[in-house]
Amino acid sequence: MATDRTKVRRIPERGVYDRDEINQILDSAFLCHVAFNADHGPVVLPTLFGRHGDTLYIHGSSGAHMLREMRKGIPVSVAVTHVDGIVVARSHFHNSINYRSVVVFGTATEVTDVQEKMLGLEVVTNHILPGRWDEGRKPSTTEFTQTMVMKLSLDESSAKVRTGGPKDEAEDMDMTVWAGVLPVGLRPGELVPDPALKDGVPVSDSVTTLIDRLKS
Amino acid sequence: MATDRTKVRRIPERGVYDRDEINQILDSAFLCHVAFNADHGPVVLPTLFGRHGDTLYIHGSSGAHMLREMRKGIPVSVAVTHVDGIVVARSHFHNSINYRSVVVFGTATEVTDVQEKMLGLEVVTNHILPGRWDEGRKPSTTEFTQTMVMKLSLDESSAKVRTGGPKDEAEDMDMTVWAGVLPVGLRPGELVPDPALKDGVPVSDSVTTLIDRLKS
Repeated sequence: MATDRTKVRRIPERGVYDRDEINQILDSAFLCHVAFNADHGPVVLPTLFGRHGDTLYIHGSSGAHMLREMRKGIPVSVAVTHVDGIVVARSHFHNSINYRSVVVFGTATEVTDVQEKMLGLEVVTNHILPGRWDEGRKPSTTEFTQTMVMKLSLDESSAKVRTGGPKDEAEDMDMTVWAGVLPVGLRPGELVPDPALKDGVPVSDSVTTLIDRLKS
Repeated sequence: MATDRTKVRRIPERGVYDRDEINQILDSAFLCHVAFNADHGPVVLPTLFGRHGDTLYIHGSSGAHMLREMRKGIPVSVAVTHVDGIVVARSHFHNSINYRSVVVFGTATEVTDVQEKMLGLEVVTNHILPGRWDEGRKPSTTEFTQTMVMKLSLDESSAKVRTGGPKDEAEDMDMTVWAGVLPVGLRPGELVPDPALKDGVPVSDSVTTLIDRLKS
């Protein structure tokens, strides 16, 4: 929804308000940057997240500064950004990057309902490792208590997307300098099994699914 | 420097205050997330940056909302985050990611001195594409005017780093579920030359340098 604060002002043709496209950008990421106001000013921190319908879930230790601030019900802003390419132009003015980013505004609230809190943990876990929730050990009562889950509505969210090559000026097109795009992406390396892993335990489906997603 | 707000509170053994290590994290990245307070609350946005000594430079269009806010001399927080691996534990409580992140606090100011402003543009350009400044066309007077450069001291910055495998509970070690680390990293794809690139123009050294950096 394009509200006053979600409206993409700079280069408005890059603005995207379609919820399906926003969800796609969120679902192919797992890291977000959360901004909130502490007593001393704005703070931005990276953290994991998950999405369930129109809700974004964040979790962390009950003792974490960020979550202790957020549980007060303060306004936050969350950004999720994919860098897809380095756009190399003939002129520096037109250097750019190709990206897909989502920014969300809202008030984060603590999830206190036990069932929804467990759902939030499942959502964050499965968001990065699809299906992991049913493979691993679920939280004990102590672990559950030591964890805080926050939620944020996606109602006020927008995306910004840049694709394509450099947009150089006509008078620069004869320059004999390379121009184009270097595509980049977050890619998987070789798995490092835990040294204590028991012999013959196969790689989990959730991990294989994540690898496939990062390769595509 | 570990001030009250840069001190890593959550899992303090992950805190890093060594400036060389902070610089390494900054120099191997090019994207940051900047948080500031707008009238309606906190805003976080992704943008490119460069580092020169103890100063972080950010640039953008003179019309950009973020930069127009920042030029007022408001407090900001900047985060730079590398995700190095997905830590897959036997228990969900111990799932994690390996990462290197830097958070900077300070007051961003507009660079108005012409020479320093040009330096700032060079720094941002060469930060992502080492040596590009001397390969491409430098800004015209009009382009220079249409661009704003902001700077932020790195005096109040800290890093947080996680490495290694999952830290599962002793009683979970007999579980027959896969555990370990999936390393991930931002990797280069195949170059896409601009369709209008003149025949025989070789790939620029700056681009080759970036590719090599992203492969290592």
